[in-house]
Amino acid sequence: MGKTSTRRIRLDLLTPAEKSIYDAMQVVEKMAADERLTEAVCLLEQAQNKVADYVDEQLSMK
Amino acid sequence: MGKTSTRRIRLDLLTPAEKSIYDAMQVVEKMAADERLTEAVCLLEQAQNKVADYVDEQLSMK
Repeated sequence: MGKTSTRRIRLDLLTPAEKSIYDAMQVVEKMAADERLTEAVCLLEQAQNKVADYVDEQLSMK
Repeated sequence: MGKTSTRRIRLDLLTPAEKSIYDAMQVVEKMAADERLTEAVCLLEQAQNKVADYVDEQLSMK
C-alpha cells in the first residue's frame, strides 16, 4: 500500500474509466430493490477495482 | 425467449442503467491491453446482463 492506495476512493482522482463505472453504479442503485440489481452493483464494484489495480500499478511505475 | 429477448442488443432500447454500463465498457476497452482490464470488461458485461434480466422481466409483466 503506497501513496496510490487512497486514490481509488477519491472521486477527483478517478480515471475516466473508473468514474464511468462509478457513475453506472449510481444509476443501477437508484433503479429498484432487486437481487439481480444488487449483484450487478457488486460486479460493477469488482470491475472498478480491476481497473484501479491497473491504474495504481501504472502510477507506481512513474 | 419472448419479444424482449433482442432488446438488450439494441442500443436504442437500453435503459439508462444498461447504457451507462455499456458506455463504461467502451471507455475501459479503449484504455490498454491488460489482463485486468479484460477482466473488468467481462465483469461489466455480466453486470449489464444482470440489469437486463431484471428489465426484461419487468417488461414481460406488462
